[in-house]
Amino acid sequence: MAELSFATTTRAECRLHVGRGELARLGARLVEAFPPPRKIVVVTDRNVAPFWLERVESIVTEAGYASHAVLVPAGEEAKSLRILGTLWDRLLATGADRGTVVLALGGGVVGDLAGFAAATLLRGVPLVQVPTSLLAQVDAAIGGKNGIDRPLGKNLVGTFHQPARVVVDPDLLATLPERELRSGLAEVVKYGFVREPKILDLLRKAGDLEGLKAKPEIVDELVARCVQIKVEIVARDERETGERVLLNFGHTTGHALEAADGHATLLHGEAVAIGMVAAAFLAVDLGAAPPTLPAEVTEVLERFGLPVASSIETKRLLPFLGRDKKRKTGKSRWVVVESPGKAGLVEDPPAATIERALAAIHKKGEEDAPAA
Amino acid sequence: MAELSFATTTRAECRLHVGRGELARLGARLVEAFPPPRKIVVVTDRNVAPFWLERVESIVTEAGYASHAVLVPAGEEAKSLRILGTLWDRLLATGADRGTVVLALGGGVVGDLAGFAAATLLRGVPLVQVPTSLLAQVDAAIGGKNGIDRPLGKNLVGTFHQPARVVVDPDLLATLPERELRSGLAEVVKYGFVREPKILDLLRKAGDLEGLKAKPEIVDELVARCVQIKVEIVARDERETGERVLLNFGHTTGHALEAADGHATLLHGEAVAIGMVAAAFLAVDLGAAPPTLPAEVTEVLERFGLPVASSIETKRLLPFLGRDKKRKTGKSRWVVVESPGKAGLVEDPPAATIERALAAIHKKGEEDAPAA
Repeated sequence: MAELSFATTTRAECRLHVGRGELARLGARLVEAFPPPRKIVVVTDRNVAPFWLERVESIVTEAGYASHAVLVPAGEEAKSLRILGTLWDRLLATGADRGTVVLALGGGVVGDLAGFAAATLLRGVPLVQVPTSLLAQVDAAIGGKNGIDRPLGKNLVGTFHQPARVVVDPDLLATLPERELRSGLAEVVKYGFVREPKILDLLRKAGDLEGLKAKPEIVDELVARCVQIKVEIVARDERETGERVLLNFGHTTGHALEAADGHATLLHGEAVAIGMVAAAFLAVDLGAAPPTLPAEVTEVLERFGLPVASSIETKRLLPFLGRDKKRKTGKSRWVVVESPGKAGLVEDPPAATIERALAAIHKKGEEDAPAA
Repeated sequence: MAELSFATTTRAECRLHVGRGELARLGARLVEAFPPPRKIVVVTDRNVAPFWLERVESIVTEAGYASHAVLVPAGEEAKSLRILGTLWDRLLATGADRGTVVLALGGGVVGDLAGFAAATLLRGVPLVQVPTSLLAQVDAAIGGKNGIDRPLGKNLVGTFHQPARVVVDPDLLATLPERELRSGLAEVVKYGFVREPKILDLLRKAGDLEGLKAKPEIVDELVARCVQIKVEIVARDERETGERVLLNFGHTTGHALEAADGHATLLHGEAVAIGMVAAAFLAVDLGAAPPTLPAEVTEVLERFGLPVASSIETKRLLPFLGRDKKRKTGKSRWVVVESPGKAGLVEDPPAATIERALAAIHKKGEEDAPAA
């Protein structure tokens, strides 16, 4: 009877370059991180490719790499086993080896798919994220999470695989559809309430979506602040065993709304926006936040045309609340904001509290919302 | 323009319990590593289940866990995207959360599939390996490699995901088909030539397969020694950037034989056996080994009924030699044994040398083998 043991340590370093004009420096960043010659495979989708693929491929080629491109379909439906299999095979067909770099050029879906493919191709190849949506720039492209969906839910399989480089250039947002921009702002609002009230001040200063589009310096500052917060939190808690869970403010209800909706009509940020309102009502109901919080959350969201209620029946949401892959106990977990910038976690709040919070975001029931 | 960076460190600890009778202690090992209550899902195949599943499930249940079982088809064909998708969904259907343990009960195929599923389910759940084949006990179940096959080749996607526990009990080999036992012995022979000549002495002492089966104490010692070597090497080089590559002795040709054969007739160990003979001829041809080496390799393999030549034409093997996921340059890499216990790596040996080595293992061409 022998007992043996060993331990392995894996260190992943992620460097981020954030600022308007950073795309022009992508070639130099790649050369510094991954000396050529080698292959770089740009993974993007059919929405982003017409705007940015040629530019990125020429940057890659001019930097001395063999450039390949693999297109995946746009939208959440692309995060499927079938598309992942095709992506793997196309990456392999380029002659990829362990030195090949996967460059994800797109929003959250492209980042999740390309990230998972990079994490698993030949048991792991380097990944670079060049996010083109606001949501990806401030959130999804940072932190190493990736994954695909299964019939039982979103992101149920995936890995943690840190991108070696993330290049965040707000210039890329110029081609983003307006609804996608609004959706991304929901995550910006989230950072404001969870960590940094100054973000909410900046949003109010911009006034509304038109105001924001007219003031790129505010967009730049918002992006920079959100990236900074995300980096700080991930650096301390990559695997979401602690504070990273706070970034799920609005996501308990948000995920339930997306699931009940069959991911058909609501964008992720829209669902999170409504979810933050629900979480604000819950916080008040639990006595954790002042009664003014729901109105404060609602006010910021409505400035940017984000929804704050849903017509989905409360009872249709309940079965989806507990389906959270982080839970180890079958109970729902809620991020509760006490005041802007101060958030905590509540495990398994009373069912009646949850039901009142969900009733408060039901469109027909807004006037019946708990007065708190 | 902001530049930010952070680094994450992931530590994985693997503990191994090796010895006859260890299966009886599996329950205590699990409790020590993963305090109940929680779910343990036993993943096994249709060959192993009739012999061992009931026993393992009752151990798991008696230790205080909720036990589930998921069966996968037997054989290399099971390492497919389709079966992986089904496995993910069945694991999720048990209500798995991040505390659920996946227990791989089987040979290399089960370990690769269950290991990949565990590495990616909910972005990673704990894994326990209980190998039931000799090949898995001495090699595949140790070191964290997992994966599935793609049309372009075997194990082209996967991860490194260390099992938290590995329980190696030679009693489990009692139900192993004889051909599988022989196949596993090829990897045992490999350890002898690459690292520890004493292993070859033990094999010669056993005499042949019947002799070995009659002397369980020799089997136990062989298993223990091989596990020890594998652990030492993986502890120093988990990601195969250095000495772990030496464990690929015989595998350059072995993989090519399997690929050219379409994985139809040769077992992995059989292909590796033939590959070790080819590598021995190559070593002699390169002047790295004495001319007696091929006969020495052949003699040990033939004792145990392992093949030392193939009827597959040399020219059919050549295209598969370069397709090695570790290569970054498109060249083939060979592990070259100078004398039993002393091995090194040769990158891209001359084509004529490779062709002579392959000719030497061609059945019709044995007598034309380079006299070295």
